[in-house]
Amino acid sequence: MLERIRSPQSDNGDDGYPDTARIEAFSDGVFAVAVTLLVFNIKLPDPAENRRLSQLLLSQWPAYAAYAVSFVTVGIFWANHHYMFHHIRRSNHMLEMLNVLFLMCISFLPFSTALVAAFIRNPREQRTAVFVYVGTFLVSALFFTAVWLYAARGHRLLEKHLESQFVRHLTRKYFYGVFSYLIALTAAFWSTAVSLAIIVAVVVAFFLPTAYSPRSGLPSDR
Amino acid sequence: MLERIRSPQSDNGDDGYPDTARIEAFSDGVFAVAVTLLVFNIKLPDPAENRRLSQLLLSQWPAYAAYAVSFVTVGIFWANHHYMFHHIRRSNHMLEMLNVLFLMCISFLPFSTALVAAFIRNPREQRTAVFVYVGTFLVSALFFTAVWLYAARGHRLLEKHLESQFVRHLTRKYFYGVFSYLIALTAAFWSTAVSLAIIVAVVVAFFLPTAYSPRSGLPSDR
Amino acid sequence: MLERIRSPQSDNGDDGYPDTARIEAFSDGVFAVAVTLLVFNIKLPDPAENRRLSQLLLSQWPAYAAYAVSFVTVGIFWANHHYMFHHIRRSNHMLEMLNVLFLMCISFLPFSTALVAAFIRNPREQRTAVFVYVGTFLVSALFFTAVWLYAARGHRLLEKHLESQFVRHLTRKYFYGVFSYLIALTAAFWSTAVSLAIIVAVVVAFFLPTAYSPRSGLPSDR
Amino acid sequence: MLERIRSPQSDNGDDGYPDTARIEAFSDGVFAVAVTLLVFNIKLPDPAENRRLSQLLLSQWPAYAAYAVSFVTVGIFWANHHYMFHHIRRSNHMLEMLNVLFLMCISFLPFSTALVAAFIRNPREQRTAVFVYVGTFLVSALFFTAVWLYAARGHRLLEKHLESQFVRHLTRKYFYGVFSYLIALTAAFWSTAVSLAIIVAVVVAFFLPTAYSPRSGLPSDR
Repeated sequence: MLERIRSPQSDNGDDGYPDTARIEAFSDGVFAVAVTLLVFNIKLPDPAENRRLSQLLLSQWPAYAAYAVSFVTVGIFWANHHYMFHHIRRSNHMLEMLNVLFLMCISFLPFSTALVAAFIRNPREQRTAVFVYVGTFLVSALFFTAVWLYAARGHRLLEKHLESQFVRHLTRKYFYGVFSYLIALTAAFWSTAVSLAIIVAVVVAFFLPTAYSPRSGLPSDR
Repeated sequence: MLERIRSPQSDNGDDGYPDTARIEAFSDGVFAVAVTLLVFNIKLPDPAENRRLSQLLLSQWPAYAAYAVSFVTVGIFWANHHYMFHHIRRSNHMLEMLNVLFLMCISFLPFSTALVAAFIRNPREQRTAVFVYVGTFLVSALFFTAVWLYAARGHRLLEKHLESQFVRHLTRKYFYGVFSYLIALTAAFWSTAVSLAIIVAVVVAFFLPTAYSPRSGLPSDR
Repeated sequence: MLERIRSPQSDNGDDGYPDTARIEAFSDGVFAVAVTLLVFNIKLPDPAENRRLSQLLLSQWPAYAAYAVSFVTVGIFWANHHYMFHHIRRSNHMLEMLNVLFLMCISFLPFSTALVAAFIRNPREQRTAVFVYVGTFLVSALFFTAVWLYAARGHRLLEKHLESQFVRHLTRKYFYGVFSYLIALTAAFWSTAVSLAIIVAVVVAFFLPTAYSPRSGLPSDR
Repeated sequence: MLERIRSPQSDNGDDGYPDTARIEAFSDGVFAVAVTLLVFNIKLPDPAENRRLSQLLLSQWPAYAAYAVSFVTVGIFWANHHYMFHHIRRSNHMLEMLNVLFLMCISFLPFSTALVAAFIRNPREQRTAVFVYVGTFLVSALFFTAVWLYAARGHRLLEKHLESQFVRHLTRKYFYGVFSYLIALTAAFWSTAVSLAIIVAVVVAFFLPTAYSPRSGLPSDR
């Protein structure tokens, strides 16, 4: 079987590219590192400070909130990436490059997260920080959708047996994600609180299995 | 065979989710990064200091102790995660999300470890630091158990041939872990030394193959 | 099948080495970590600064540009590494060691990237920084090509069914990469701007699927 | 086939443990992160310094040397770990725990490397730094050998068809490694230069395919 994967003759494609195993391995690596680096965002309190440690720890609550929201959001991106690639049969150079651009946005998140945690209580600068934070999510969702559209449209990189109804279902779902982040970014012009509330709402909506259930369009196996 | 994994028709599930290979790959990545970042917790002595390097190195023994305890504890969580997922046949969205929450706790450990190493010799603040450190382990164990309970109860994500006696055996084992960390957390109200001693005892108990042996409930193959 | 991979009898080689799965897994790990560490290159603006956050963020544009160029270049190295190893049937000690030297150069990139971002606006020192940056790419490309030449020449580590025309096609492609970075390094003696423009041009050329298309020399399957 | 791996019935072992795939994945992750973190050991020169950038870069040559020696040594440990696990058929709890202790030493290396680079030009402290550096290698080699001895002796975790002559050959090879580091550590009492020269010699000896050739004891397949 490994022979089958590795010899060009047995590929289902026209350019000698293998299945998507290694694109998934590299993506999993970037997801895992980006998400784990978020912890550097939480600073060790200075032992020389006058206040009690418990107070110092509680006073940096925005860092914990930003850690949790970013971690779970990346987790959701990962789960969707996993689910999307489960339906992509094989890879090619352009798909890998679009995926690299997507991962470039995910890797940027430790910076955006640190920024929003550092400036959210600064009334003069919180808007700029929220723009960068929400903007990182928006551009990530855009590239994520681009990967899917490239694989799904015309290029026939998908699994053979996918019903077009299911493909359209996923496309719609990914556009909803982009649209949610676009609304969150627009909302930041009026209120950073509303903008961040939308980010949290997206986390909850994608976290719950009932929202955007992948079951609806899938052929039932049993 | 890869075809079988990748085409929805051949899945054993009802929602097009594949086996657990990629959830394990992502988890392994987070485990590996979190554990390796623990080394940043150990500071390079300042060459400008008056004391000898050997003294400076020895004086930061809490950093080495915290490094070793956290590393081996994460290693034990990893080994149990590995063993647990060996018995989980397939994944779904909720399992992935619960696993993300578990990994969020594991990723927090480099911070908790740095905190306990920095404040353990500060009599006024050591309690707070130990609360955060033991609390991170407790919440990790809670989410770990939640992943297992979700997979084992009702949702039928387990391997077909597991005996219910063995499933109950694992459930008990994971509850013992939660319970141990709960006792360690409670003990910290009286004595941080006793609390940390329990943490070390848990490491030793889970390290030794005789403690909570997985053999007892398993069907013997030979 | 796993049995087949793991027992020496069934290996196609003469020294008990398995297929290239684990060399690819380790490489993917190094690629993923190196690329994600690039974000540390982007500094959080100091809240104590007098200027607006938006100005501070915009003023560090070289850090963003260096992040993007390095990330996509490593992404391209990864995609080519992936493609190259798709055509390498099995591993041996020397191949692994050459690959380690290649990865040592890739891992150095977070330093080179930070250096070029920090000194590019310093007229007196920008040349030195660009030399190190372009030099890291050049040496990476040299070791990448060495891995390929070692696998392709004499040692018969390639897939059985590869046409020699296709092997020569890949060799030429990798030499073009080395040559481009050599020109970029030479150009830095006269102009750092031209040198960096070549680096960006290489990114664009390798990004587009039409440049150096892998299709030409491959047997068409369908 | 995946079914075969995942259901306890088909395991070749007595405790429901799967093959070594995931222990290798976790190890590869730790190797990859540890090796990539070595770059943080190389400091960005301070733009405020009076000296030329090129001088500042050249003056930190011990950091580059330590980076290269540590990176290639970890690469060699990785290659040997890879080769060793190619001959280990299945895992169990104790093997995983010994492997965790081995990885704990590998993960410590970024600290040891930074230490030796920072203090090698300090005549008063270089000995201490070299002791820690060489000691990290020695303890790593000891745990590496412990993993092998545990798998090879009595516990029958090895591939079925390995000749005992080949097993003894590997055991000898790993003892040579431990012995070399022991000599390097002892040499540091007289001369840190000799100690480090032995470390470099070990790199060269293990790098070259002729030294400790794994071919000798292996059954020839073709």
